[in-house]
Parts: sequence; C-alpha cells; structure tokens
Amino acid sequence: MEWSYKMKRKAPALIAFQGARGAFSEEAARKLVGPRTAVLPCERFEDVFRSLKSGLVSGAVVPIENTLAGSVHENYDHLVNFELPIVAETSVRIVHNLIVRKGLPFSKIKRAFSHPVALNQCLDFFAKNPQIERIPYYDTAGSVKMIVDEGLSDAAAIASSVAAEIYGARILRRSIESDRQNFTRFFLLRTANYASRHKILPAAHTTWKTSLVFSTRNTPGALFRALSAFALRDLSLTKIESRPLRGKPWEYLFYVDFLGREDTANAQNALNHLRELADFLRVLGCYPKGA
Amino acid sequence: MEWSYKMKRKAPALIAFQGARGAFSEEAARKLVGPRTAVLPCERFEDVFRSLKSGLVSGAVVPIENTLAGSVHENYDHLVNFELPIVAETSVRIVHNLIVRKGLPFSKIKRAFSHPVALNQCLDFFAKNPQIERIPYYDTAGSVKMIVDEGLSDAAAIASSVAAEIYGARILRRSIESDRQNFTRFFLLRTANYASRHKILPAAHTTWKTSLVFSTRNTPGALFRALSAFALRDLSLTKIESRPLRGKPWEYLFYVDFLGREDTANAQNALNHLRELADFLRVLGCYPKGA
Repeated sequence: MEWSYKMKRKAPALIAFQGARGAFSEEAARKLVGPRTAVLPCERFEDVFRSLKSGLVSGAVVPIENTLAGSVHENYDHLVNFELPIVAETSVRIVHNLIVRKGLPFSKIKRAFSHPVALNQCLDFFAKNPQIERIPYYDTAGSVKMIVDEGLSDAAAIASSVAAEIYGARILRRSIESDRQNFTRFFLLRTANYASRHKILPAAHTTWKTSLVFSTRNTPGALFRALSAFALRDLSLTKIESRPLRGKPWEYLFYVDFLGREDTANAQNALNHLRELADFLRVLGCYPKGA
Repeated sequence: MEWSYKMKRKAPALIAFQGARGAFSEEAARKLVGPRTAVLPCERFEDVFRSLKSGLVSGAVVPIENTLAGSVHENYDHLVNFELPIVAETSVRIVHNLIVRKGLPFSKIKRAFSHPVALNQCLDFFAKNPQIERIPYYDTAGSVKMIVDEGLSDAAAIASSVAAEIYGARILRRSIESDRQNFTRFFLLRTANYASRHKILPAAHTTWKTSLVFSTRNTPGALFRALSAFALRDLSLTKIESRPLRGKPWEYLFYVDFLGREDTANAQNALNHLRELADFLRVLGCYPKGA
C-alpha cells in the first residue's frame, strides 16, 4: 500500500482564501506557496479560518493590512480566536485594471463594476472618464466573472490581472488606481501541527518577524512598560494594533510585530519580561520578513 | 437691526449625524447637546464632516469606537483631515429592540431587517426564534422607517427605542442583543471658531481628556520614546489607535487619548517633549471625560 502511505504523508497543498478566483488573495497565495497551488475560494474570512482549523485545507492566506485602507481588523480577531500560527508573510501591490469581455471597445463602456474600496481607489480614472458609471459589487474578481457570465456589452469590471486571465477576459486599461503606494500585506497560516513539523531552518542573512498579542492591566503607564520589554532590548516594532477586549468595555488587546526570531535569547527575554506585565500573552507566529 | 444682530450671534443648534432619524448617533446628539436639539441626518460620515466644515450645521456627532466592533477608523481619518475640534464625548449603550408596525403580533413575524452589525449582535435571539429570517439593511433606524412606510405585515426591524418613537412603531421585544457590554463612544465636534469662542470653564472635580495625533520617524524604539512623554509625567493613556500614513507604506499615524487638560503645565510639557520626537503632532481636542 505504498500509494496510500504516500497520499497520507503528502497532503495536497490546498490553500483557502476569501473572495472569488482571481482575488488579490489568490495572487498572494501563489507568491507564498507556489504558482500552481490549488486554491479553495471562500465567501467569508471566518470560512477561511474554519476550513484550515477543520483540516479541509492545508493552509490559509488572509490579508492583514493595506497601506491605504489600514488593518483588516476582523482577521486580527480571528488570529487570536482560531489559534492558527502565522508561518509566512508577503505583500502584493494592488494594481486595478479595467477589464472587459474580449472584443469590447473602450467607447462602449458605460458602467464599471467592482468592490466599493476598489472603485474608490480609481477616482482619478472616473474623473477623466465621466461617461462611465461606478457600480458597487461584492468582490473585485467576482465582478469580472459576472460581466463574462452575463455577457454584458456595456460594462467593465475593475480587478487584478489574474482575474482577467482566469475568466478569459481582456485588460483594456492597466493600473488605473490613483495611488501607486497601494500594497496589501498577507499572512500564510498553517495548523499548529503542520507548523511544528515543518520548522523553517534559520538561513543566514534572513530577517525574521515575530507576531504576538497581549493585554495589560488597565493601569497608568501599562502600555509604556509593556513596550519597554522590546525597547530595552533594541527589538524594533514594525506594527502595533489595538482591538477591543470582549467583556471589558474600554480595555484593549494589543497586537505587536517585532523584528526578531522568537527562539533567540534576546526575544525570549523580552517575551518573559512582557509576561510579567501582561494579563495575557500569546505568540501568533514567527516567520521570515517578506520582501 | 437688533433682531438680525441676535440672529447672527445665536446660530441655531443644528447637529449633523450619519444615518436615518432615530440612529444611535441621534441618541448621542441628544445626550451631548440637549433633548430637543435640531438634527441633520446625513448619508455618509464624510457628509457629516463636510456639513460642519461648510457652516451648514453648528455641530457634528460621530461614533469613534464600539466596545465590541472596535474603532470607526474612517472617522479617525476624517478627524485629522477636516481639522474640526472635539469639544465633548459621551457613550451610549447599544440596546437593540425588535420593532414592528402597531398592531402586529409576534407570531406573524417571518423576517427582521437591520444593519448587518446589529443582526450579528442578536444571534442568541435568532437562535431561539429560527422562524425569523435575518435580512441585511443599510441602516438600523432606516429599517424601522421602511417597515412602516411599506406597511409590511410579516416583518420587524431591529433598532433603537428612539427609532420606534420617531416612526410611530411599537417595540415587541426589548434589548434582544446577545452581549450587554455593548457601548459606542461618540464625539461632539464644532468648528475651530466656535470652540475658541465657547471655551469650557474648568469646573472642580472634572476629569479631562485630550486627544491628539502624531507620527514619528520610523526608527527602532520610536513609539516607546513617544509614549515616554506621557508616562514620565504620569499622564495616563486611555486609547491608542494606529492608522496608515498616506504615501509612506508601512508607516503609521498614532491617535492617542490621555487623561488631562491640554492647558496644564504637565500636559504642555508632555506635548513639547513629544514635539521633539514627532514628525507631525496635532491636538484634536480637549474635553470633559464622559460618564
């Protein structure tokens, strides 16, 4: 039974993400796991976390922050609730393209469908082309699928180039976003079991990041003292995010990313120091810093 | 022309807020300005800020954070962009009620309309009453107006008691939210001109809050040093929020609230200290701490 043994050992690399095929999360999944990875599109972020927790997929890719829109706060909440470790990060430049069914000329376009956030990021394009009406749709890539499936002959969609490719549509105008400084950072999550079996070996010259979440007693100077655990050891923070603490109105959970490997003496000392001050502390993952 | 002189001096207390009449923001406006204040409902938060900036209204009430859902990040961005000072804060307990047209019994209800966030905050109610379908609507109070205007005889809305009162509807079930620890904090904003003409006198025993926004150079320990300006002077932070800095990917603006009056020597020293460290610093307002 060599075959079934291999099947068991080598779980298929199926990666869950939120959105339709061709979403920016799929682009991130290809960067993180490989260009030919099999993917499972999910409707909601919660479904993405659930499908990994239940073992339906072997990994999940979720957006955590965008340089224009800010953090994806819902995913911060899921990170602490689902306890699925972060094993890698990447960032994707968000390039919005005007996409149509093949053969449709620009002059015919009267409507453009996309997610409201994407439409808002292309305001300069719409100002220059007032004949095109903006129409909100639930998803960027989903809007490409829709214009193709419905055979719309006066409509475009705004989405990634991967979405155009997947649905056999054509890019009429590339990169119509107003602000080029538009990046989304994504995490690759695995199960705790998988992460412990596939420890990444420390390569020379790799910069590492550690992500954690903590809460402190609600006393004056508590956050300052908590951050001293890092500052006193020259560990540089790259991100701090606060989220409400359930059941304790006006108290907060703090999510922190710092540059450093969790298993070094310096980081261990910082975490032990923070443990003295924190009511709650959990490391969410340690992973190579993305490009 | 005594009359016109008075007209000019005493601007009508018209307060803008986002949502339909009867929104929780209207409840906050009544608490902040008075039970009989005239209000201007606006479709979007941006419209609320614009209407105050342009002088159409004399004040604006906006939600800034909720103890379950977290910060209203869009309004943090508007605070720094519109430069309208915060002059007061309050918090409102979010009580969701099942509201119907007068005369409709509970047994007839097959559908409940409300904002998706409100529907999600009443999951226990829906679990106990599986015969009632949840239907997302753009606004809580707006859903009450709709069931009354349309004369729906199988539908309820979920909204505040003020919304039931305004639209002449009836509360069938009070306080159906799953978690009672559900509060939203609101700011009252005025024009800079108005705020400087109506300085609040320091009453004894009043606790004050000061809100500010700053950015630091992106160097190790920068946030820790920035917070030292408050910690070294025993000024207690009640909130910190980070938002992306436009044009500088992966850098952040920090919004901080601390307990203290901006015009005391201690707070002035802290602000001067922070100014040494910050690339950008602006005080957003100083106001009595809400109950």
